[in-house]
Amino acid sequence: METTEFQAYVHALRERTDAALRRVLPPADAVPVRLHAALSYAVLQGGKRIRPLLVHAAGHALGASPELLDGPACAVELIHAYSLVHDDLPAMDDDDLRRGQPTVHRAYDEATAILVGDALQTLAFAQLARAEAGERQSALLHALSEGAMDMVRGQALDLSLVGTQTDIATLQTLHALKTGALIRAAVRLGGLCAGSPEDPRLDALDSYARAIGLAFQIQDDILDETEDTATLGKRQGADRALDKPTFVSLLGLDRARERARQEVERALTALSGFDSAADPLRHIARYIVERNH
Amino acid sequence: METTEFQAYVHALRERTDAALRRVLPPADAVPVRLHAALSYAVLQGGKRIRPLLVHAAGHALGASPELLDGPACAVELIHAYSLVHDDLPAMDDDDLRRGQPTVHRAYDEATAILVGDALQTLAFAQLARAEAGERQSALLHALSEGAMDMVRGQALDLSLVGTQTDIATLQTLHALKTGALIRAAVRLGGLCAGSPEDPRLDALDSYARAIGLAFQIQDDILDETEDTATLGKRQGADRALDKPTFVSLLGLDRARERARQEVERALTALSGFDSAADPLRHIARYIVERNH
Repeated sequence: METTEFQAYVHALRERTDAALRRVLPPADAVPVRLHAALSYAVLQGGKRIRPLLVHAAGHALGASPELLDGPACAVELIHAYSLVHDDLPAMDDDDLRRGQPTVHRAYDEATAILVGDALQTLAFAQLARAEAGERQSALLHALSEGAMDMVRGQALDLSLVGTQTDIATLQTLHALKTGALIRAAVRLGGLCAGSPEDPRLDALDSYARAIGLAFQIQDDILDETEDTATLGKRQGADRALDKPTFVSLLGLDRARERARQEVERALTALSGFDSAADPLRHIARYIVERNH
Repeated sequence: METTEFQAYVHALRERTDAALRRVLPPADAVPVRLHAALSYAVLQGGKRIRPLLVHAAGHALGASPELLDGPACAVELIHAYSLVHDDLPAMDDDDLRRGQPTVHRAYDEATAILVGDALQTLAFAQLARAEAGERQSALLHALSEGAMDMVRGQALDLSLVGTQTDIATLQTLHALKTGALIRAAVRLGGLCAGSPEDPRLDALDSYARAIGLAFQIQDDILDETEDTATLGKRQGADRALDKPTFVSLLGLDRARERARQEVERALTALSGFDSAADPLRHIARYIVERNH
């Protein structure tokens, strides 16, 4: 798969995901109007759609049909979207800007933002009711809830570490929960749509997912340090300002970059037994450390 | 079924539900400790467990086994529990007291309370992964997500009505969403555990659920007006203090009581085609307007 071909693949899946998300959201003009408008605002402002992309690419690698993958892809993105809305709240990270726009509690109000996050999580799980029933549905539900639960655990751990001395092992544990768990869930959901929960290829996909999850977070820390607010769409240096430990603050910029590259190599190695159907996953791994926002 | 027999039934199911909830919650001493302790605090402080009781009683009415009902019963209670934690937040109802104890954000902190609510919703949906797979699981997931979504819609509508003139029809719509939807979900989940989503008896159960949902809310408004803070376990007159419309403020105490009784009659009529297996549901309907907290 050529780079331009991959770019077209990413673009097509982003459009596909956005269309699927629009179908899933309540019409913005339905009662209660303010809640529904805020739901659309929270979800349809853009976003890289990396998690839905992972659902589709993992499903593609094992031969699942795209139609089966839309539900889980939306589910994972809606969990991600809810977590952003709640993380931005004043009692949490207190962020005013997200994807270059006012955060939900700034554009609406705090009560609405709390309810928007709650509703997005409900909508996320509702998407799995559309998957074909049977053993698969139970496994999908299990994978999504485990990812969502670990994400909250990670967020709680993150809050507890603010202002403390943190070593690299703790930081890795933190991010394995906070961002890694949902990335693993995305890959597993995609893989599950192709076959049985016992398929041994799911283990290889999971090794891939762990590695890119870590690479993703390291790259986020690097970008937080090196890119400006306009490029990021959120406040540059936000983590540093909150005195949160990052891979850059613990390793320095050069070693952080090296570590991210190592994780990408580890991800590619995990896919060594896969044919060209896994090329999108391979490109995603490289994209993660090449992106600038 | 005699009243004493019903009381023993309620007691046994409350114990059963509490035991099931304890199995479902992460150990309070697992990392991150603060989050897990707060999860237990939010769920295991007591509570009437009316929704799990409804799941079991509805399942019992149609012949479902109690083992099948534990998952959905926990799921509905966990959705209810999450909604209380978030509703009590300063940006929402700003309540300090719940079931006679400090609310989660008072006992812990606001960020923890937000995460506790989020985690409880995740845990709720995770409970459905344990049900036997197939058509039933999809229907259960659909019923729970619909109830949870309408509940959030009701909460948003409620916030939008504070300080406005509200008529009785609007108030009814509000509560059909805010508290009614989850009560209907509880009854439907129980019914679904007994058979097919096409079973016509589910419609009769739904009429029952709509009526007791309304009676429940009217009785809540009556108690908010007539009982003291110690009996309620929350601040007496809280709704009035917030200038929220209630059935008592719109109808007066006598007509509100009369209306609650009418809804109980409607609920009992809906069950007229059911045998004695529906006796717990009949007792619950009467209990709802006889309770004092």
